[in-house]
Amino acid sequence: MSWILEESDFDPNRITTNGNKFMIGNGAMGYRGTLEEFTKEQLTACTLAGLYDKVGDQWREPINAPNGLSTILICNGEKLSLLTTPYESHRQSLNIRNATFQRQTVFTAPGGNKIEVKSQRFVSMEQLNLIVMKVEITSSEDCELIVQTGIDGDVWDINGPHLENYETTERDGIIGLSTVTHELRQPVTIAEAIAWDGYVEQGYIDNSTSIYRGISIACEAGKTYGFTKYVAISFDSSNEQQSLDDVYSLVHKASKESYSIHLGRHEQHWERKWELSDVVIEGDDDAQFALRYSMYQLHIIAPTKSEKVSIPARGLSGQVYKGAVFWDTEMFMLPFFLYSQPDVARNLVMYRVHTLDGARRKAAEYGFRGAYYAWESQDTGDDACTLFNITDVFTDRPMRTYFRDKQVHISADAAHGIWQYYEFTGDKSVLFDGGAEVILECARFFYSYAYYKEDKQRYEVLDVTGPDEYHERVNNNAFTNALVGQTLEIALQTLELLETEHPEIYEDLIRRLDFKQDKENMIRMYGKLYMPQPDPNTLVIEQFDGYSKLEDIELKQLKSKILNKNEYLGGGNGLATTTQILKQADVVLMLHLFKSRYSHEVKKANWEYYEPRTEHGSSLSSCIYALVASDIGYADWAYNYFLRTATIDLTGESKQYVGTLYIGGTHPAANGGAWMAAILGFAGVHLNRGVVILNPSLPERWQSIAFSIHVSGQKFQITVSDTEAHIRSDEVNALEQSFRLGLQTIKLEPGSSHTFQYVGKGNGDELAG
Amino acid sequence: MSWILEESDFDPNRITTNGNKFMIGNGAMGYRGTLEEFTKEQLTACTLAGLYDKVGDQWREPINAPNGLSTILICNGEKLSLLTTPYESHRQSLNIRNATFQRQTVFTAPGGNKIEVKSQRFVSMEQLNLIVMKVEITSSEDCELIVQTGIDGDVWDINGPHLENYETTERDGIIGLSTVTHELRQPVTIAEAIAWDGYVEQGYIDNSTSIYRGISIACEAGKTYGFTKYVAISFDSSNEQQSLDDVYSLVHKASKESYSIHLGRHEQHWERKWELSDVVIEGDDDAQFALRYSMYQLHIIAPTKSEKVSIPARGLSGQVYKGAVFWDTEMFMLPFFLYSQPDVARNLVMYRVHTLDGARRKAAEYGFRGAYYAWESQDTGDDACTLFNITDVFTDRPMRTYFRDKQVHISADAAHGIWQYYEFTGDKSVLFDGGAEVILECARFFYSYAYYKEDKQRYEVLDVTGPDEYHERVNNNAFTNALVGQTLEIALQTLELLETEHPEIYEDLIRRLDFKQDKENMIRMYGKLYMPQPDPNTLVIEQFDGYSKLEDIELKQLKSKILNKNEYLGGGNGLATTTQILKQADVVLMLHLFKSRYSHEVKKANWEYYEPRTEHGSSLSSCIYALVASDIGYADWAYNYFLRTATIDLTGESKQYVGTLYIGGTHPAANGGAWMAAILGFAGVHLNRGVVILNPSLPERWQSIAFSIHVSGQKFQITVSDTEAHIRSDEVNALEQSFRLGLQTIKLEPGSSHTFQYVGKGNGDELAG
Repeated sequence: MSWILEESDFDPNRITTNGNKFMIGNGAMGYRGTLEEFTKEQLTACTLAGLYDKVGDQWREPINAPNGLSTILICNGEKLSLLTTPYESHRQSLNIRNATFQRQTVFTAPGGNKIEVKSQRFVSMEQLNLIVMKVEITSSEDCELIVQTGIDGDVWDINGPHLENYETTERDGIIGLSTVTHELRQPVTIAEAIAWDGYVEQGYIDNSTSIYRGISIACEAGKTYGFTKYVAISFDSSNEQQSLDDVYSLVHKASKESYSIHLGRHEQHWERKWELSDVVIEGDDDAQFALRYSMYQLHIIAPTKSEKVSIPARGLSGQVYKGAVFWDTEMFMLPFFLYSQPDVARNLVMYRVHTLDGARRKAAEYGFRGAYYAWESQDTGDDACTLFNITDVFTDRPMRTYFRDKQVHISADAAHGIWQYYEFTGDKSVLFDGGAEVILECARFFYSYAYYKEDKQRYEVLDVTGPDEYHERVNNNAFTNALVGQTLEIALQTLELLETEHPEIYEDLIRRLDFKQDKENMIRMYGKLYMPQPDPNTLVIEQFDGYSKLEDIELKQLKSKILNKNEYLGGGNGLATTTQILKQADVVLMLHLFKSRYSHEVKKANWEYYEPRTEHGSSLSSCIYALVASDIGYADWAYNYFLRTATIDLTGESKQYVGTLYIGGTHPAANGGAWMAAILGFAGVHLNRGVVILNPSLPERWQSIAFSIHVSGQKFQITVSDTEAHIRSDEVNALEQSFRLGLQTIKLEPGSSHTFQYVGKGNGDELAG
Repeated sequence: MSWILEESDFDPNRITTNGNKFMIGNGAMGYRGTLEEFTKEQLTACTLAGLYDKVGDQWREPINAPNGLSTILICNGEKLSLLTTPYESHRQSLNIRNATFQRQTVFTAPGGNKIEVKSQRFVSMEQLNLIVMKVEITSSEDCELIVQTGIDGDVWDINGPHLENYETTERDGIIGLSTVTHELRQPVTIAEAIAWDGYVEQGYIDNSTSIYRGISIACEAGKTYGFTKYVAISFDSSNEQQSLDDVYSLVHKASKESYSIHLGRHEQHWERKWELSDVVIEGDDDAQFALRYSMYQLHIIAPTKSEKVSIPARGLSGQVYKGAVFWDTEMFMLPFFLYSQPDVARNLVMYRVHTLDGARRKAAEYGFRGAYYAWESQDTGDDACTLFNITDVFTDRPMRTYFRDKQVHISADAAHGIWQYYEFTGDKSVLFDGGAEVILECARFFYSYAYYKEDKQRYEVLDVTGPDEYHERVNNNAFTNALVGQTLEIALQTLELLETEHPEIYEDLIRRLDFKQDKENMIRMYGKLYMPQPDPNTLVIEQFDGYSKLEDIELKQLKSKILNKNEYLGGGNGLATTTQILKQADVVLMLHLFKSRYSHEVKKANWEYYEPRTEHGSSLSSCIYALVASDIGYADWAYNYFLRTATIDLTGESKQYVGTLYIGGTHPAANGGAWMAAILGFAGVHLNRGVVILNPSLPERWQSIAFSIHVSGQKFQITVSDTEAHIRSDEVNALEQSFRLGLQTIKLEPGSSHTFQYVGKGNGDELAG
């Protein structure tokens, strides 16, 4: 099976798409899949994780660093660029196994000689602020070649410029650029060292925001000339000089070792990643590649060492969506990391601990107690979401939307993530290190937010927006109420755990948070929280109060009313708002999250009801329909929805621009959704009260799927085919673990294995023995 | 002082406006101020009170009866019509003292002779289904004149046709037309008899939906020929033949007596009306006429004999606004009737008793208990308001609005009206006859509607629309909460009154309504209902939760953003919705209704805050700003707002059409508002716990204002000047009554009088002695 993604020609129309598709990164930096001669016009960007900047009244967004890989070849006085120079061949490829980007171009230079340029680059997984690139050049004729390579400080920004006080430097053959951010005056410095075989350096080209070195090579026909660039970026030091010294020192040291030495260390990390996370599908090469590519996208943006950043909704593919962290992380990406790399999962959930004060500020701003997490979260946890988030295409006026004000489930999602981490790993430290406080503050927020309906003797959650954002400000959204209930439950369990096992921590927390009365409130509210139930006749759970009274229009008919292809279907007067058409999985997402709570019949009835009414206006939708389709045995439906999810960043067919505003980028939630659809859906893996449940329902053409999972710090290898499921407990494990398939439950000792056997395709209900 | 409204020329562009302006009526029927030769094209209509019809999917609306006054003169073969015939002069006038309409036209007939046509008509206040019209014709030359006069069955309808099964009849010289309504098959019959001096009747012109008689007159030059038409309409009989017999018999009998005999009886009623209600202003003839005209408009549409109809928002001026009854009646018209004609006031409030079941159905439809009155109420009390009440001018799509769903204050308005009637008259029968039940069911609705906020230990009223309809679905609208509180208070007072004085009625009601638990609920809720309070610094009361955070834009600036003059400022994306600009008095209306509850400073602060932010997009707004301006001593402001209100149907400057849809008509709420601005505002009359309070603040040019009021069945004459207020208790009174002005309170014995004296213009605070 290939691990290589390749395009063997150059299409100027695909520059933006390929920037996403061929991206490399290491969780601290993302480098878009553009070519060395490209500039900001081609959306070249090295996006930094966790550093944001705001200019004037524009929205806050992440920083793109100066581009240290910028390289221009000049042959016979003309720049060689795929944008302007004739070329004989071009291919670019991405090796997702080791996260390296390659390009290979044969230019037809002025005069007719063929110049082959090969480059390879990676963002080091060993040294998180290092990028290494190797370039090789071969000319078919003797020629004089000038290489201008250095740091391009003319950065692509959506709402910039974010960097100021540019100072170029040069010292001992290393070039550098020092800047500070506009808003917080945070130093961002970059240095580049180069290693080559004694070409003639012509000096430096310094235009005060960029600095290049000029290299002159007297090429002999057929001989290959190469050099390696070592680029380091510092953006976490508070001292500008120190920051610059650091990057100088880093590239100086790095340049003492060869490209392949650095690559080797980098590859070791990637080998380990795939060992932990790889999924092997037999019988479906396309699905295999799409799934691995989805995991690749998650690996290159996951914070491996910092718990102060999480994964933005468009990863590190640029400044889109303000580089903000949404619920996407907890609900769509976290499962992948929980099962494969719990240490990364811990970083992700700890991000909510570090942004708790921002969530407290937001709650207070709206007049509530507790923690109301940002719908669009950046470094401080303050909400980056604007109140007028969409422009009305008919009037060109900003449209008031309620993403920020009303999607209260975000606080439940944050608590859910922390508790999931604890349940999967048994690692209580996350609770002691602030996780318990987050959970209690989220629960307190919901108590403060909720109302009691005396006439019906129940608590209700009013005026919210659920996942289906086309219906804003609804009452008792089933999904939201379920998650609010879960938050209360988690809070009570947290308190019970602490009180029983760590009374001193419990006492301290109760006192510090003044939570005594609120604990009573939680208990009371949890007992009487309204949970919308399946209709006795249809089994359908109403998405929110009054949903069933909305116009039951067919999606096709609704779409036929669209007057402007960019018109928003939600908001004040959107076409969907008065109908039952929903943007994305809502009730169905609830059925997935609380799968043990609902019968097969209820899941089936709701999937069938909501599926034709879902517009999938969000990339978060398809995977959920895949998951529940698997759960109810609709393998074909599940497979189609899986493919839609898993190929989203390969096809690049999602919307890239609204007017002149770039809104494209990668789709980490869909990437995580692809993994969920495969492992939680087709293999049907599910952790319930410490027992790993399997409920396989493989697509027709899949012979088997094999993968590892981590539960409670133990590692297990699982292979599922259409007749059996084989499980092996790793030799290094220390604990026994229960597994269940159908009606059979077994306990697996460390180092032992078991094979469940069952009959044919299906949802696993039909257990053989 | 003149009582005559006159236009002395004919302007085709003013036909529609004059149809409203010159309207006559008697509360059972309204007859628009059009000319005899006009047809439905000129919006000729005889609108019937309380009879509605629905055709297909169109909205339900009142019935316009066939036009029994239709009269066409033919001279030398040509029809004489102001629309087509040259004329020498034309004047039309309305005598508001006796509600008669006059026209006087001198046509230049073909051949050149001048034909003068004079007509006079009235809708009898003595015999409510009778219209009488006198026509006189004089020609300058001998000529042969044909008069075609009869019943025009080709009726103006907005959403018709509503009448079916047309049958024309003729018997003993009386012509008739029998129809049934489309929806309810309700007979609507009309008969016409004529009295003339032996002209030659040429026979009948019968086109199956209309029937005319032809009369041939050999006119001698200078001699006047006349005839009188007696038209009766029946629309409350269930039997078609009986209905027709009734109108035949009625016009037969009526035609035995002359026009002037009928007019005399009619005038006696009007004399009595003015005796009870007239207001005499010294020093301002324009204001005097506008105020009397406003009262005239109320008199011609007020139900004098039926308690099953109330006053629609556009009176009886056509089918506009579905002929529906809104809160306008209780909040803007009722005070006039309470003070002047308590028997009519009783009819108005009893309408809510007769529509209680409709209100119960609406509450149940929305999942609540109790009575939720229709925002647009017709005969059954079911809500005629549609969910998509406005068309978006940018997309031509129906726009979802929440008039019907969320203006819950309507139930409080209904209860308020009933209690006001009881408080003003002391007439408990209204409570026994169903009023108590209405009040309790409205209170129950609010309990069922409200939520308890445990975190703040208070009941809140969520998701409502207050008077300011530009801000839909808000929480804790100060006006609404105040009225909900009043409803609870009234309910508890009603229960206390019944329990103390009529225990058997009390027991029966509690048992029948199963109200025991709800009484406890009322007490609890009343004690903890959240009432938005003045801000400690600014004294401003926030219109609803979060209002103060909305954009504080200037009205002028907001208007400069309007892209289409017909665009709606409210609704989903309306320009005002995200700003502090309000449609109409909201908090300020609350300050008026609960004037004793707020200090001078609070009223002043709020009037000043909200006045520049009010767009006055409703005809209900200006009078309230006038009232509170008087209250705080802003006499000039009050006067200007008073004039805007009082002249609304004289200028006819309000919007008449939206697209091709006629939305004009008269403005009874503004008419009632003009009266309130004068009596409750300038004279400052106010009943508080049985004491009549005066707080005069006359406009600069007014020397005095004199009027009568009824309180507790007693009648008082009051004259207020800028230095004294004279009050006389009528000789026929039986009880003493307390009056207060400033700090002085006096008790007035029957037949005695008192003069309060004070210093200069002002708000009465500056009491001399």
